[in-house]
Amino acid sequence: MNPTELDAEALYAQLEAQVLSALHGEGEVAVVGIYSGGAWLADRLARRLGSSDSGYVDVSFYRDDVAERGLSAEVKPSQIPFEVEGATILLVDDVLYTGRTTRAAINTLFDYGRPAKIMLAALVDRGDRELPIAADFVAHTVKLGAHEQLVLHKDSEGRFSLTVEHV
Amino acid sequence: MNPTELDAEALYAQLEAQVLSALHGEGEVAVVGIYSGGAWLADRLARRLGSSDSGYVDVSFYRDDVAERGLSAEVKPSQIPFEVEGATILLVDDVLYTGRTTRAAINTLFDYGRPAKIMLAALVDRGDRELPIAADFVAHTVKLGAHEQLVLHKDSEGRFSLTVEHV
Repeated sequence: MNPTELDAEALYAQLEAQVLSALHGEGEVAVVGIYSGGAWLADRLARRLGSSDSGYVDVSFYRDDVAERGLSAEVKPSQIPFEVEGATILLVDDVLYTGRTTRAAINTLFDYGRPAKIMLAALVDRGDRELPIAADFVAHTVKLGAHEQLVLHKDSEGRFSLTVEHV
Repeated sequence: MNPTELDAEALYAQLEAQVLSALHGEGEVAVVGIYSGGAWLADRLARRLGSSDSGYVDVSFYRDDVAERGLSAEVKPSQIPFEVEGATILLVDDVLYTGRTTRAAINTLFDYGRPAKIMLAALVDRGDRELPIAADFVAHTVKLGAHEQLVLHKDSEGRFSLTVEHV
């Protein structure tokens, strides 16, 4: 599949099917999205899982390269309105790449307490990892160039799309 | 393979072959072992890789369950005698299990600087992960009970063996 032809809704349906199948009967699972694309995915997954515990993390402050990248004006505070201590958490990101964002998100969660388990779901895994992180659930893997970025969009009706942008 | 029959030397040879094949031509790779079993493995891997940068981390202080487990009297200080900033690092553990030790070791390395890349090698992956961590190199996977523990030993001639102990 060419990256420009990625059907985000079809990929989301695959991811949702994997997650529902695996977490059926797991007990309460809290769903935490990484802002912004992961938060949209997490919202839909939490509804489908019937999870009453969901939240968001914005790791812009925690990323290890803040000094290089600078901070966007749009940093949102993390919202974790449930008890992290002992929780089983599904962390959700749109695109898994170096693993640095995942590490930052995990460390953010540990700031709130010690979870029993953190699993990771990503819509797309683009490889080129820089840390030994792996997703438990992933809908698609794709190879991109260093100057390409996959961006998830949500339209006014809540439908997802993916574009490849040059950075 | 029954866990009680694990041949640690044969597994080490497999792990070494994977690592040498993958890292051939990667440039300088620093090798960091997680104390104690991972440090023994790291010593041998560093010699075979011809790496002049090697070190040890003891994550007993950093593990998120220090309060539950208490601290052993044998905690060693971490030794990272190379520049972590920008380094490519092979982190080495004997047994990969929940991923909590790996997370602690990664965070320890980031306390020293921001590595370009951290890869993970483990002699045995016993599954039952509680964090989304994966090894880049692993010689063997095995399923163990919650009260079983795989322990790596090194004899006076430097030969490895593995035993299953009940905890």
